[in-house]
Amino acid sequence: MLKLDFKKGGGLLPAVVQDYTSGKVLMLAYLNQASWERTLETGEAHYWSRSRGEIWHKGGTSGHVQRVKEILVDCDNDTLLLKVEQVGGAACHAGYESCFYRSVGTDQSVTVIAEKVFDPERVYKQ
Amino acid sequence: MLKLDFKKGGGLLPAVVQDYTSGKVLMLAYLNQASWERTLETGEAHYWSRSRGEIWHKGGTSGHVQRVKEILVDCDNDTLLLKVEQVGGAACHAGYESCFYRSVGTDQSVTVIAEKVFDPERVYKQ
Repeated sequence: MLKLDFKKGGGLLPAVVQDYTSGKVLMLAYLNQASWERTLETGEAHYWSRSRGEIWHKGGTSGHVQRVKEILVDCDNDTLLLKVEQVGGAACHAGYESCFYRSVGTDQSVTVIAEKVFDPERVYKQ
Repeated sequence: MLKLDFKKGGGLLPAVVQDYTSGKVLMLAYLNQASWERTLETGEAHYWSRSRGEIWHKGGTSGHVQRVKEILVDCDNDTLLLKVEQVGGAACHAGYESCFYRSVGTDQSVTVIAEKVFDPERVYKQ
């Protein structure tokens, strides 16, 4: 039986979220015990929103929920890897498929390397 | 120019580490400002070891260094994605290619889903 180590991160555990079919890394998010249980119960990713201080049903506002296809745990029981089906094709609130839509050069210059999938103005401001 | 947000994590920033060719997620690690600069300078991944409290040149002991091929940053500037060439074919100190070598069921049962690439006893106890 899994014993997740929530203590190391002060009650929060990071989860890498990866697209189940393409293997693209979509985002990193945090779970507390309650959001972990909600994720297991519902089969849809629930996180802990550090900015809002509440459980966050990913896609609750935008409809871009994440159906959890596979869950992996790391060697230290302190990080999860969620392989998901990303409904709507975009995980990022900025409108991109992945939150990692910018490449960084060794001179720390930043380049956008992806196209937007949706217009955040339309999705969030209805 | 990139302005990484080290403050949110108390001076540490999580980095998802992904194999550059296979797309497999290998591990999650943390960087502080100094390890970030070392990574940029050397082209090999340097992290902050939370357990040892020091800069950790990944592979310094085992020889399994990570050559950084691409760096991506997320929408909040608080998480990195390092795409690396994993020398030796294994990122995990337990001998597996990935630290995520165990699958978790909805009943929280745990199943090992990978084969060991090396024997940790041999690599670390010479």
